[in-house]
Amino acid sequence: MKATYPRPASAALAPEVAAAVRFNADGLVPAIVQEADTDEVLMLGWMDAEALARTLAGGRVTFWSRSREEYWRKGDTSGHVQHLVSLAADCDGDTLLVRARQVGAACHTGERTCFTGRSLTEHKGAEQ
Amino acid sequence: MKATYPRPASAALAPEVAAAVRFNADGLVPAIVQEADTDEVLMLGWMDAEALARTLAGGRVTFWSRSREEYWRKGDTSGHVQHLVSLAADCDGDTLLVRARQVGAACHTGERTCFTGRSLTEHKGAEQ
Repeated sequence: MKATYPRPASAALAPEVAAAVRFNADGLVPAIVQEADTDEVLMLGWMDAEALARTLAGGRVTFWSRSREEYWRKGDTSGHVQHLVSLAADCDGDTLLVRARQVGAACHTGERTCFTGRSLTEHKGAEQ
Repeated sequence: MKATYPRPASAALAPEVAAAVRFNADGLVPAIVQEADTDEVLMLGWMDAEALARTLAGGRVTFWSRSREEYWRKGDTSGHVQHLVSLAADCDGDTLLVRARQVGAACHTGERTCFTGRSLTEHKGAEQ
């Protein structure tokens, strides 16, 4: 979903970062967030160039909220901050892997991760 | 990217699965793939309803390749199969977390994960 107001240019991104990341037609890239201490996958959020720049500069994971059409620095309202540990792009630059230290719950539902308790599979004898 | 040929209807998805997953305007949902034995995040792929149905039915992780516009059962060409362990949707159904056992490398580059060696951050004293 395109923003209805002009977004800042991606001049805030270091050239080597801008070169490594491919934003989609909406100017966004999906960012997987993984807890650095336990390796749990917490959530997936979306970043535009500005959100990525703010994340890297400030060490606080920041997304572009597609539903609210605004920048969302995780934890500003809930206190459930994500402290950036490391960030990588994938082989073709169209996905980010963010490792972070999550304060409290990642999910607005209060669950630790956005996937907790939401399994779609049941296998005899297999782990969940 | 929409396919240029009709895709099978999502009748193959069990009703409770179809109800739990929200496909985007292109009929796709992002699927994070995590190695079940080590918790490494391997890659992110995209699934339409048919790819998801095939994954759940066959126990082999199957994506919709947006670049090749075809179904892609991981490992059919490379031998780098992903055996499904579990699959969950997130709180609003627009992201999937697939836990799988990866045979060999997840990335076409030969790297174990698509994020290996592609860090965009360097922090003094912090882990990568």
